[in-house]
Amino acid sequence: MPGHEIVGEVTAIGANVSGFAIGDKVMIGVIVDSCRNCAPCQHGMEVYCREFPVQTFDGVDRIDGTRTRGGYSAQYVADQRFVYHLPEGLDPAAAAPLLCAGVTTYSPLRHWKVGPGMTVGVVGIGGLGHLAVKFARAMGAHVVAFTTSPKKVEAALALGAHEVVLSTDAAQMAAQAHRFDFILDTVSTSYPMTPMIAALKIDATLCSLGIPDSFDFAPLMLTMGRRRLASSGAAGTADTHEMLAFCRAHGIVADIELIAMDEINAAYLRLEKGDVYYRFVIDMRKAWTADAGRG
Amino acid sequence: MPGHEIVGEVTAIGANVSGFAIGDKVMIGVIVDSCRNCAPCQHGMEVYCREFPVQTFDGVDRIDGTRTRGGYSAQYVADQRFVYHLPEGLDPAAAAPLLCAGVTTYSPLRHWKVGPGMTVGVVGIGGLGHLAVKFARAMGAHVVAFTTSPKKVEAALALGAHEVVLSTDAAQMAAQAHRFDFILDTVSTSYPMTPMIAALKIDATLCSLGIPDSFDFAPLMLTMGRRRLASSGAAGTADTHEMLAFCRAHGIVADIELIAMDEINAAYLRLEKGDVYYRFVIDMRKAWTADAGRG
Repeated sequence: MPGHEIVGEVTAIGANVSGFAIGDKVMIGVIVDSCRNCAPCQHGMEVYCREFPVQTFDGVDRIDGTRTRGGYSAQYVADQRFVYHLPEGLDPAAAAPLLCAGVTTYSPLRHWKVGPGMTVGVVGIGGLGHLAVKFARAMGAHVVAFTTSPKKVEAALALGAHEVVLSTDAAQMAAQAHRFDFILDTVSTSYPMTPMIAALKIDATLCSLGIPDSFDFAPLMLTMGRRRLASSGAAGTADTHEMLAFCRAHGIVADIELIAMDEINAAYLRLEKGDVYYRFVIDMRKAWTADAGRG
Repeated sequence: MPGHEIVGEVTAIGANVSGFAIGDKVMIGVIVDSCRNCAPCQHGMEVYCREFPVQTFDGVDRIDGTRTRGGYSAQYVADQRFVYHLPEGLDPAAAAPLLCAGVTTYSPLRHWKVGPGMTVGVVGIGGLGHLAVKFARAMGAHVVAFTTSPKKVEAALALGAHEVVLSTDAAQMAAQAHRFDFILDTVSTSYPMTPMIAALKIDATLCSLGIPDSFDFAPLMLTMGRRRLASSGAAGTADTHEMLAFCRAHGIVADIELIAMDEINAAYLRLEKGDVYYRFVIDMRKAWTADAGRG
């Protein structure tokens, strides 16, 4: 889903807006509206809105029914509730992915109370996973990265992983059994997950963020250790504010490649081959002359 | 797995046994030994023994390597750690299933803190499910039974369910969305589980006990609500002692049909058709004249 991690500048403000001024550097994430009345909305967990939140890109506006056009727009009109200040000191382009990849990984790490004394696995070292490694390390956990790609071993260590496991190596995987307090899985395709669940301690959780078509594992693996398989969404405003403050405090941004609009086809082909470290960010400054997309 | 819910009488005791006397009515459950040194064993959670516990029936004895023969034996030698007193006031035959079906359902209901103010689902009203309904009701929860069988609707209400949902009825299932704090699923075959997971509230857990070959659900259902799928084993000695005390306090036993050994073939055919309310218990008193099976 492109165009849902946006950084820009305030060019106009409505009559009832407070806390934002023209010229402010601001960010918009995955969602731009929700019902605001259900229990999740009232707790700042708008991603779990009972009426389903409005997605920033290709969602349907709750007021006028138009399609949202996300970050590809020249201008974007959004409610202040879903607009965030760019934290001081963070590079705008490198901060953009925090609004989806960032909060999507930060939120479950916080929810499952990752911290010192815990051994935490991060599966898949890509757009989400590379931020998960940075977060889990900054939270004080012992971080083990799992990757299928031998060429990512050094890269994962550079990101802050204490150890890297090649998940295609059966012997390395067998050695992980019963080790982990929490595993954050960012893989978006179905893969043989049984050894990964076996790596959990008793009562520990594997949280899968990739929403594959199906999960492929032996149910007995959950039974043997009262383990849990979970998933979570992102983009609640409460978590997003907290995550941005954490990133400012720890100087965390995404590792990105900034590209121009006319490079996106080449970038897309590289993306399909997994050749990205770790997020492409499109510089829109010269992309638009007129036209305006409404959120 | 037959022969792992046993009630009998002490006929001999070893030199180091305390707390049991000849003539005591005693029970043996699913497991009869474990390593006793790992963390789970030290916490009375022997079912999660890192060396795998010794099963009462068709397990391998840790000392002499023989196969265990379970409740079909004329005599059974077991370590006192894995032998329980039959609670006073409970019918021996109706109490026997407590040692597997009972603790298997009691344990997760306790672990997930089922109690007053919670809405709890029990899926499948059979040997395990009928006890789960009794336990959840006695724990003070609002209990909703899910069954595929219209003829079990009245039976489930009689067991103590406040409501019964026909899980094959799409409209009834859709009405359950976001209702449940906890669901205990006792179904042992793979079935379309998506509506059942959708019935969970945010952060709620479905614990599946049946160990089907695979789980059939859309991963997105976990994401939409940070829901969890779990499973759990049974037969830890700590939970078993607590469960037996609970059953004594609340007068809970299984609903059974007592049969003779020469009726087991007919009973097995009925079992295959789901025609059992809810556990067959074999009366072994006349089945054996000599011979002894060692555990």
